[in-house]
Amino acid sequence: MDADNVDNPRPGFSRRSLIATGALGLAVPIAATQAWTDGRRSGVAAAALTGGQPARADGAIKKVTIYAEALPGGLYGYGYAPGTATVPGPTLEMYEGDTLEITLVNATDQRLSIHPHGVDYSTDSDGAPFNNSFNAPGQTRTYVWRSHEMTAVAGRRFMPGSAGYWHYHDHAMGTDHGSLGVARGLYGALIVRRRGDILPEKRFVAVFHDMSINNRAAPNTPMFEANLGQRVEWVAVGHGNSLHTFHLHAHRWVDNRTGMLEGPADPSASVDNKDLNPGSSFGFQVLAGEGVGPGAWMYHCHVQSHSDGGMAGIFLVRNADGSMPPGAQEAIDRFQGHVHTTSHEGHVE
Amino acid sequence: MDADNVDNPRPGFSRRSLIATGALGLAVPIAATQAWTDGRRSGVAAAALTGGQPARADGAIKKVTIYAEALPGGLYGYGYAPGTATVPGPTLEMYEGDTLEITLVNATDQRLSIHPHGVDYSTDSDGAPFNNSFNAPGQTRTYVWRSHEMTAVAGRRFMPGSAGYWHYHDHAMGTDHGSLGVARGLYGALIVRRRGDILPEKRFVAVFHDMSINNRAAPNTPMFEANLGQRVEWVAVGHGNSLHTFHLHAHRWVDNRTGMLEGPADPSASVDNKDLNPGSSFGFQVLAGEGVGPGAWMYHCHVQSHSDGGMAGIFLVRNADGSMPPGAQEAIDRFQGHVHTTSHEGHVE
Amino acid sequence: MDADNVDNPRPGFSRRSLIATGALGLAVPIAATQAWTDGRRSGVAAAALTGGQPARADGAIKKVTIYAEALPGGLYGYGYAPGTATVPGPTLEMYEGDTLEITLVNATDQRLSIHPHGVDYSTDSDGAPFNNSFNAPGQTRTYVWRSHEMTAVAGRRFMPGSAGYWHYHDHAMGTDHGSLGVARGLYGALIVRRRGDILPEKRFVAVFHDMSINNRAAPNTPMFEANLGQRVEWVAVGHGNSLHTFHLHAHRWVDNRTGMLEGPADPSASVDNKDLNPGSSFGFQVLAGEGVGPGAWMYHCHVQSHSDGGMAGIFLVRNADGSMPPGAQEAIDRFQGHVHTTSHEGHVE
Repeated sequence: MDADNVDNPRPGFSRRSLIATGALGLAVPIAATQAWTDGRRSGVAAAALTGGQPARADGAIKKVTIYAEALPGGLYGYGYAPGTATVPGPTLEMYEGDTLEITLVNATDQRLSIHPHGVDYSTDSDGAPFNNSFNAPGQTRTYVWRSHEMTAVAGRRFMPGSAGYWHYHDHAMGTDHGSLGVARGLYGALIVRRRGDILPEKRFVAVFHDMSINNRAAPNTPMFEANLGQRVEWVAVGHGNSLHTFHLHAHRWVDNRTGMLEGPADPSASVDNKDLNPGSSFGFQVLAGEGVGPGAWMYHCHVQSHSDGGMAGIFLVRNADGSMPPGAQEAIDRFQGHVHTTSHEGHVE
Repeated sequence: MDADNVDNPRPGFSRRSLIATGALGLAVPIAATQAWTDGRRSGVAAAALTGGQPARADGAIKKVTIYAEALPGGLYGYGYAPGTATVPGPTLEMYEGDTLEITLVNATDQRLSIHPHGVDYSTDSDGAPFNNSFNAPGQTRTYVWRSHEMTAVAGRRFMPGSAGYWHYHDHAMGTDHGSLGVARGLYGALIVRRRGDILPEKRFVAVFHDMSINNRAAPNTPMFEANLGQRVEWVAVGHGNSLHTFHLHAHRWVDNRTGMLEGPADPSASVDNKDLNPGSSFGFQVLAGEGVGPGAWMYHCHVQSHSDGGMAGIFLVRNADGSMPPGAQEAIDRFQGHVHTTSHEGHVE
Repeated sequence: MDADNVDNPRPGFSRRSLIATGALGLAVPIAATQAWTDGRRSGVAAAALTGGQPARADGAIKKVTIYAEALPGGLYGYGYAPGTATVPGPTLEMYEGDTLEITLVNATDQRLSIHPHGVDYSTDSDGAPFNNSFNAPGQTRTYVWRSHEMTAVAGRRFMPGSAGYWHYHDHAMGTDHGSLGVARGLYGALIVRRRGDILPEKRFVAVFHDMSINNRAAPNTPMFEANLGQRVEWVAVGHGNSLHTFHLHAHRWVDNRTGMLEGPADPSASVDNKDLNPGSSFGFQVLAGEGVGPGAWMYHCHVQSHSDGGMAGIFLVRNADGSMPPGAQEAIDRFQGHVHTTSHEGHVE
């Protein structure tokens, strides 16, 4: 199972068993064994942590343990417990102002690390060998990621807060930039929400890199599933060395922070195809099948040779009651090369 | 003649004979023979069409026939009538809420289709073999593209409507992603306007792909022409397999939905160079020669080896009365390799 | 010394001696010998200059002489005086409404020019051989760049003004697109500010192209320095033939005109990684070390093979008093391959 392709812990939408983690919304597989410690940090502690400018004192501190492990096929993955590593790793979520303390256990024989985009960290949590911030083989090390809300400057202007559809990845395996770790699967999504943001019912993560989606080529790419009308959140991440563009059939979003118009005068352009190049990420929410109905819809890299070469997958929009819409099974079969499988859950494993 | 490089059907700006088609603004060559049927669709019909969520009942339904044909040089094109196919195909326009029913006649011996970006369609209008949605050689098939206005969600937020500078292309020739059809010219622009949008006086379409602009290399790339001060609309589309950036000399636009600031506080950045990668599209309006005067201005891919290799063309801004400004002919002659031609209309054929 | 990596001429932040040039903010090395002429231009002169639409009559006219010269290693550069050419060339600044008259002295044996993005110019200042606008070897030629504020159109809409983080480059050496000149270093940043914009205390320019940053590979890439809390402005420019993405560790900005939220409802997304492809540019301001503290932070191309190959540099955030923070020297030494140098100013030469 992809840890990223899970239902959100909200009543009525749970397809798999999850532990809800309160305001942080961190979706955790029930099998995960790591200990979570919640707490309010004091203003003194916050000031000590942040070095420069203290984060808001009312943010929560979440502690989580992540295990980096070798996987079959030469891959590596992050997971919440030994034996649970996935590609991509678990999707991490926080609200602006929260702090995430990640104890990374390196269960491999390689140097590796975890480096986040978007959030605040001191040099010793950089995850870069440049700053002597990595796990030696077998080593356990704690990385602290902080976040903050927007802060006013002159006029109506604000320095931005941490909210965004970000990602994390290895920055130490193979090269000082973690090129081997990234190529082998050490990456995942990181979502920092602003208070008041709309929460999705489901969440998908698609990482485009090296002619693969989540290190898989068609027909073994993830099949993401939702029921008609469900609010689903996509997080798209780019990695590797090549040009990619993310295209989703029959759905579109706005090219801004949330993917939705933030008011009737929001000038942002709508897109259904967006550059997804190394190190970049974006996210958006759609209502599954809005205005188009249920069915099997493709998502793919729009670089023609890449989609032809296997950078394509299926977004299956089921009927509102979860049943299969007409034609969807046939489309999936075509995608699979007419090799019928009884359980389509196989595509998301 | 490029079907895309035409005057808009408004009084005083018509350079070629066009049939105006009312609010939809679909510019159609007078030679076209297809029948148009206008109509208001009932709420019942709309609900039947849209599957999920009905479009607004007051949208117009437009019916158009398009012919896909082989062209000289191994190209293929779409056109409104037999023998009129062009590369790119006709620019299609609609307002949010309208429906476009396209009867596609496949006059070739290849499997092909028409797949739109941005708008709403059921799986049987997907244009993808994956959904069994394509024209066999010689087959006629109808594709239905719907559109909708923004819809309110929580707070001040809105799910976006269909408005945008989109495009359409084959999704079936050669591969399941239509890579051969796209490479050979089966593409065009699709504009969905929001009510209240400013209409242009002229409209240009430039498709960057495979080291070509509209499947041509310099000096045979389109020469787009306008008179000083005319409001011209550019639609830029990316296709193929390579990195491209669209650059226009002496003009700039805002990187949002319309290319204009949507109010004095619109935060969008101005650009005169923008990534134009496979599957992406954008549009903007400029006042020809605003602040810079008339003359021959280049537009080109800013990837240096691409512009050197022929991905460059001319935006000729004539004097306000349509006469040639000083130096423009000399610039065109330089571009043509000093081969003077009496009719520069040749560049847009 | 990079002309672009200089302190802004404001009290308390001057690290090197600069001549402040008033409202235009053009930072000029004190060694520069060019004559500056300021003046208000009359409405008549403005109308004559602009051809189409006159710029606002209250803009300033600035005259500057720039020398294009050969540099060691096959490079070429622009500079304010003979013998001072740098790669990139001087960062040019103006406010919307100002005019910049550049007298370009070609002190090389090659055809070359200066072509700006974003601003207004007549065909004879295009800088393109296509418009017969270039300097022959040894020739002196004046280029005029104008700018304008936003202008109202229908409704609340505005045609954009010239404000932006732009750039300039050769458009004539080697090919009609200046591919040789660009490859060899003939480029620089051009900033057009809107009145009311926040001025930075420091300013950095990073040009990504052909596997280099400012035509240098690590460890010889620029080390940009600031003290904790200083407002530093980055201008990023893309050139050449390849895909690049600009990533800055531990800092982020908003993907709009200024990099800051232009109000609490600004919908723009935050990014810390952005495509930086040929001909594109963007800029933003950060508070050095905001929320993360001082230290040595990496900036690099996030295309993995590019960062591994040398497209990486250091953003050194010193303590607020200018002293070195713990660990920073060790990080720099690692970056340098453990070759300790006593003066780190060497990295910015």
